Amino acid sequence: MGRQLHFVGYCTIGPSWHNNGSWRHDESDGTDFLSPGRYENIARILEAGKFDGLFFVDVQTLYDTYGGVIDPCIRYGGHMCMLDPMQMLTAMARVTDRIGLSATMSTSLYHPFHIARAFASLDHISGGRAAWNIVTSATDREAQNYGMDRLLDKAQRYDHADEVVEACTALWSSWGPDALVLDRQAGVFGDPSKVRYANYAGKYVRTRGPLMTPHSPQGSPVLMQAGSSDRGRQFAARWAEIVFTLQNNRADMQAFYRDVKDRVSNAGRDPSHCAILPATDIVIGETESIARERADYIDSLANAELGLSEMSNHIGIDLSGFPMDQPLSEMEITQGARGVFDIIMSGGKGKTLRDAGHQYATTQMSPQLIGTPMMIADHIHELFEAEACDGFVICPSITPGSFYQFVKSVVPELQRRGIYRRDYTGRTFRENLRS
Amino acid sequence: MGRQLHFVGYCTIGPSWHNNGSWRHDESDGTDFLSPGRYENIARILEAGKFDGLFFVDVQTLYDTYGGVIDPCIRYGGHMCMLDPMQMLTAMARVTDRIGLSATMSTSLYHPFHIARAFASLDHISGGRAAWNIVTSATDREAQNYGMDRLLDKAQRYDHADEVVEACTALWSSWGPDALVLDRQAGVFGDPSKVRYANYAGKYVRTRGPLMTPHSPQGSPVLMQAGSSDRGRQFAARWAEIVFTLQNNRADMQAFYRDVKDRVSNAGRDPSHCAILPATDIVIGETESIARERADYIDSLANAELGLSEMSNHIGIDLSGFPMDQPLSEMEITQGARGVFDIIMSGGKGKTLRDAGHQYATTQMSPQLIGTPMMIADHIHELFEAEACDGFVICPSITPGSFYQFVKSVVPELQRRGIYRRDYTGRTFRENLRS
Repeated sequence: MGRQLHFVGYCTIGPSWHNNGSWRHDESDGTDFLSPGRYENIARILEAGKFDGLFFVDVQTLYDTYGGVIDPCIRYGGHMCMLDPMQMLTAMARVTDRIGLSATMSTSLYHPFHIARAFASLDHISGGRAAWNIVTSATDREAQNYGMDRLLDKAQRYDHADEVVEACTALWSSWGPDALVLDRQAGVFGDPSKVRYANYAGKYVRTRGPLMTPHSPQGSPVLMQAGSSDRGRQFAARWAEIVFTLQNNRADMQAFYRDVKDRVSNAGRDPSHCAILPATDIVIGETESIARERADYIDSLANAELGLSEMSNHIGIDLSGFPMDQPLSEMEITQGARGVFDIIMSGGKGKTLRDAGHQYATTQMSPQLIGTPMMIADHIHELFEAEACDGFVICPSITPGSFYQFVKSVVPELQRRGIYRRDYTGRTFRENLRS
Repeated sequence: MGRQLHFVGYCTIGPSWHNNGSWRHDESDGTDFLSPGRYENIARILEAGKFDGLFFVDVQTLYDTYGGVIDPCIRYGGHMCMLDPMQMLTAMARVTDRIGLSATMSTSLYHPFHIARAFASLDHISGGRAAWNIVTSATDREAQNYGMDRLLDKAQRYDHADEVVEACTALWSSWGPDALVLDRQAGVFGDPSKVRYANYAGKYVRTRGPLMTPHSPQGSPVLMQAGSSDRGRQFAARWAEIVFTLQNNRADMQAFYRDVKDRVSNAGRDPSHCAILPATDIVIGETESIARERADYIDSLANAELGLSEMSNHIGIDLSGFPMDQPLSEMEITQGARGVFDIIMSGGKGKTLRDAGHQYATTQMSPQLIGTPMMIADHIHELFEAEACDGFVICPSITPGSFYQFVKSVVPELQRRGIYRRDYTGRTFRENLRS
């Protein structure tokens, strides 16, 4: 069996996901966003489609960079991470058996002892399906919710994050896999010689350990990351088993793919142990014209002002003061989250802020893939063969409808072509990811 | 309908609960301690018995005060809080409808933004059944796991905790109950005028807010607390809706009850809105002699050395250096967690450290209630009528067997007497607690 595609479903606990108008669509469960049943349903759908995993984005602030107010976010239903993803993953774990379960947790907001315990716990609860999407946070708003004035600067945040992951790694290995004895007759529970202190002391981070949690099924969670800067890629090369990326064309995907795989290799790791999954936003129709009309309809539900306000927060710049209809190429906008910003600026000479706002409102800058199931399978197949990716993070335009359509119509075609599993072969998330 | 009893089930995610040998008993699920199925089963049992709630203890360290090593804890299966309680409560929420779900979270280890979001999230997921057992942590070991050298001193910890709860309260009220509009046609999601910043700035704690979480079914979780010192009782008077306490006789229970109710009243709150629930460890038999033999058998599984090591951690003193068989009344032991220590010292003139170790090993100092269902119902009824309590935190000697026995044999008798609900009357934890 040759190289196989990998899919991860993009999820948010809130009304709007990649398309900020999706909650308005009749077929979305968009007003059911606080109900665990909604997310359990999504997990079941993606597991029926043999997805490697699903992951929750998490940002711990409401968006108020744009004009300094939260009004667009609340009024139009912006990107809000309403509930604790770790709790929701537990609910999803209990109605599924094989799909990987990943949550975002920020190294800037949480101490490694909490992070290590939380993911070890999820790994036990899910029987070896936990993953951690490592972020360093991008906005001082999150820091201010957590009592700090501001985040460390970007380079320091990654140095700090390296220490956080090192500390977590020490904690995850504090219990040996054979530390539990469980001899009821003799009253011997465990072997103390197999449990050790972490005693991690870095420049930023300290922890004593041991964790209270015995060795989990995977030993440690699968690590995901989405850095696109040079320092971000260096971090990914060291740690990431899944790289989630925003790239808006084939050439960029290939360049990113080659670069990250080389870096992983140079870091002494097996490049096949790091799956590179660009985001794609999909709209499927029985015919191409149906798909295009659906995409237009769905996009018409999105709110461009909300898109701009979300983009403002994402890149850390209040865009409310810039002219909406002036070409971006003539504007001076610097700083902020590199990845998204580069994509905004790469939109061609005539592109305006309004255009960018609308694009962000509908896809958060990830490419929209519109067509028949066969067209979408062809596109995925071609990018996969061209080593532009190892698969995709699938972003649903409407939820759960887009996931359901993809699983029912595109997945069987990819299976027929022999590039995607017909069933899970591994027991754990990591095993499936490497198979 | 007169005043009604309230019960809360005591739970730990680990092998040993109040009786540190319980995992060795054939009828316990003591080697299944990492499986969510175990805890879901417990939740179902307690809900069948119409318990107000259940709660998870949480201590974020392994016990190594005794002799400076973790060996007794690991070897004999001590009190270890292995998995994240918030995750486990989610699993339990999904298989129950009415029982309250409480977890311990330390104000010394977590920022209020995390605490507020976690419990608001659980309140949504459970449909209004979340409760927070507020602790300030008692050991520097926990602080050291979280990168600090030591905890604040005890008085400061409570001042700090007051600020943490104030900050959480501000965050929980950041979304008005009517902030969600959800007009799909018009594309209006919410009303920004109903969402406000917390902007809490105390001496110890700051947070900006708003929370990302809309107003939850209860608005805020039920608050539980277990302080026994003067400052602890003052804290309880201000905040607690359930007070969990260790009292080892009727007179102490009555004195505690009167004192706390007076303090609640003096704080301007309705004393009936603060349920005082002493811990009791129960062993039930069809006859009294069966019950006594069972208690002896169960107690024989417990490990006194482990008991002493756990007590050492609880009171913050390494007891390994003290003579085991000298009467406690002749020993000078000061500092540490006041509540447990007072109980240790109150054991009568001849009591030794070995005796205390064994008592701690079997009941963690809470009174053991041994007898037939009728005897236990009489005892509970009498203490309830005497205003020694509003009910109990039921600590199972074996798990889930003791809970099951209590629900099957004692609960119906209490219902027959008209002092305990036959069914839930409220929708939320708080409603049931006040009915």
